[in-house]
Amino acid sequence: MKSFIEYSSDSDFPIENLPYGVFTSDKNAQKHIGVAIGEWILDLNIISHLFDGPLLKSKQNVFKEEKLNAFMALTKPHWIEARETLQKLLDVSSPALQNNAELREKAFVKQTNVQMHVPVEVGDYTDFYSSLQHATNVGIMFRGKEAALFENWKHLPVGYHGRSSSIVISGTPIHRPYGQTLPVEGAAPHFGPCKLMDFELEVGAFVGGPPTQLGERVCAKDAEDKIFGFVLLNDWSARDIQKWEYIPLGPFTAKNLGSTISPWIVTLEALRPFIVDNFPQDPTPFPYLRHDDKFNFDIKLEVDIQTEKSPVVTTVCRSNYRYMYWTVKQQLAQQTVTGCNLRPGDLLGSGTISGEAADSFGSMLELSWKGTKPVRLSTGEERKFIQDGDTVTLRGHCLNATGLRIGFGRCEGKLLPAIPFQE
Amino acid sequence: MKSFIEYSSDSDFPIENLPYGVFTSDKNAQKHIGVAIGEWILDLNIISHLFDGPLLKSKQNVFKEEKLNAFMALTKPHWIEARETLQKLLDVSSPALQNNAELREKAFVKQTNVQMHVPVEVGDYTDFYSSLQHATNVGIMFRGKEAALFENWKHLPVGYHGRSSSIVISGTPIHRPYGQTLPVEGAAPHFGPCKLMDFELEVGAFVGGPPTQLGERVCAKDAEDKIFGFVLLNDWSARDIQKWEYIPLGPFTAKNLGSTISPWIVTLEALRPFIVDNFPQDPTPFPYLRHDDKFNFDIKLEVDIQTEKSPVVTTVCRSNYRYMYWTVKQQLAQQTVTGCNLRPGDLLGSGTISGEAADSFGSMLELSWKGTKPVRLSTGEERKFIQDGDTVTLRGHCLNATGLRIGFGRCEGKLLPAIPFQE
Repeated sequence: MKSFIEYSSDSDFPIENLPYGVFTSDKNAQKHIGVAIGEWILDLNIISHLFDGPLLKSKQNVFKEEKLNAFMALTKPHWIEARETLQKLLDVSSPALQNNAELREKAFVKQTNVQMHVPVEVGDYTDFYSSLQHATNVGIMFRGKEAALFENWKHLPVGYHGRSSSIVISGTPIHRPYGQTLPVEGAAPHFGPCKLMDFELEVGAFVGGPPTQLGERVCAKDAEDKIFGFVLLNDWSARDIQKWEYIPLGPFTAKNLGSTISPWIVTLEALRPFIVDNFPQDPTPFPYLRHDDKFNFDIKLEVDIQTEKSPVVTTVCRSNYRYMYWTVKQQLAQQTVTGCNLRPGDLLGSGTISGEAADSFGSMLELSWKGTKPVRLSTGEERKFIQDGDTVTLRGHCLNATGLRIGFGRCEGKLLPAIPFQE
Repeated sequence: MKSFIEYSSDSDFPIENLPYGVFTSDKNAQKHIGVAIGEWILDLNIISHLFDGPLLKSKQNVFKEEKLNAFMALTKPHWIEARETLQKLLDVSSPALQNNAELREKAFVKQTNVQMHVPVEVGDYTDFYSSLQHATNVGIMFRGKEAALFENWKHLPVGYHGRSSSIVISGTPIHRPYGQTLPVEGAAPHFGPCKLMDFELEVGAFVGGPPTQLGERVCAKDAEDKIFGFVLLNDWSARDIQKWEYIPLGPFTAKNLGSTISPWIVTLEALRPFIVDNFPQDPTPFPYLRHDDKFNFDIKLEVDIQTEKSPVVTTVCRSNYRYMYWTVKQQLAQQTVTGCNLRPGDLLGSGTISGEAADSFGSMLELSWKGTKPVRLSTGEERKFIQDGDTVTLRGHCLNATGLRIGFGRCEGKLLPAIPFQE
């Protein structure tokens, strides 16, 4: 497959990718849906009339919306038709768009000339805890090696409800939060700026398809049609605040201070060539969590830190989505097992993804082993946790032997100093 | 104050109340905003042109919406002007509506002739745990008297993020969920229908006012303008599922199976005559949680159970919102302390509200003391937890010495049998 839009072989956005996003530009303040191709965006609002396949011909209005929810609320055959239509329109052999200079002029925008936005109205955001190595690392640090994994962990994908309002798009700065902590066990709690700010390297999956009904279970084997696509997700975490507040109802204000997503939703279809074996599961999960097909993905994940002192970037983590113990189908089945209804646009976070290697851990908590092993940056500086002025960037891409590369772009956020508390 | 609409002295909805809801009728499938008065609803969509005060004259469109969010996104002065406009229109001395037969005919609908709907697009739902007696009861049952309250409980309003999609309106049946449980400690988990279904007697507060920005704290002393009004909330809970899944990230599928709210949002202004002393707090909370004014409310709360065998209803719980240790201002301050942004329509659940008396406990878990003391119903039946076919109804009202009664209506839900799991 070759597009008439030119891009280099290491582009995140070849014609085989075509991820969806929402953007505005200096020229147009109205939010438009677009797909990324090379360094360009194809504006779907402008070319909605070209979706003339049997399924989408009567649904072209979904591409005129300011969010992706209406498109996501259609079905997998609709999404596949959209992908095929776009690949055909962008193909080097296809004249419709290529040879229409006026339409091309209107329909293509440079990515550098736009502002990206959260592309979806996120009804509910759920965060899981599905990397075995991450759960083990955290367990060892706080409870010792013997009791590292809780008893339920290998029986169900442990998860919790997160905050939708504070999901922000890559590039949004995050303020160091104030909150309560317990600096000394048994002493009085303290109120002040968080001292242990952290990132969490995650991949988020967006739910698609028509809403399900309250009471309806979606078992793992039937979950595929509900999975629209994926983004990178930095689940910023205030570790010291979390430790004090989370008993017994889980993380709350330590997490709702902001969760950053990458702007482009990479579809399941684009990732299909990178499906790999599932993580071996022992014990065998209950039937509602079982699926026979492979649904794990070889997505190389990296985290960069850039400090305020230098333009030099250090890659502090090299992980991979394939380290997930529970698949996103299983997460979705767990989400709905008691009858919780899904809405298109719901977001499921993978949980921090850590591999076995010490440089594959997906958080500073693990990389610095609770602050005991400072991480050395290329600038010569050291980090135990994230400091004010640090920019944290998650990156992700797939690459196979044929040279096919599907990328996620960047999920970036700068930590700003705390806003002083005034009584 | 007297309305030309007649109602009995024990009506939940006198002219001093005027709670907001959203309804459809057989005659009109479009959702309209209305206020309850006696046994009637005044349809605000029909009379939106009568909001001609200085603030609302240019905002009449908010009453034409299908949800209350746009109205709630205005400010407290707008809400007060709306209340004053409505009280004037409904006053016995006011001819505008009373003497316009044609408009009256269109603008008033009997409550028995409508279907009520969730009146708000709930962006985020947070559930707290703010009744001292409830937290103590649960603590004693699971950890013993000495360790009943966790160390953080009196320092901050403990809470967690809930599920928005499964918030349903009174009258919606709930299916007994399937899920994983651990019937025997140390043995294998079990998958099957929940055996310990419970209600939780709560009051929910809806956030109003313009959205806040990410990074913005709303301290307790500044929180009043963010509180639009209140509903009854039954936070259905699958106790056995909760116990197995909640470590370490909190309740998840045990709670997202459905949360029922009463249809009428009773405004803060309507509840103002029932403000009572705050619960004494020791230790004094941190400054961000402090407010000097009284912001506790004398709302009598009751829970009824009706089984399938008989029309006889048993009131199993008589509690009061005034038993709250943390005020809703403090809950809202906690929600935002790390910079989490609010959106109008966010819902804050109080947490189960239990008093000191054994019949004031707000859940079957407490009323039956973990199933050890069955609750005797008026029908002669016994209940440890909720059985299939039981209808659980929360009711709430305020009543003062002058005879002023402000009611919440009913928050009702019937538990249906589990939908069998098919592999």
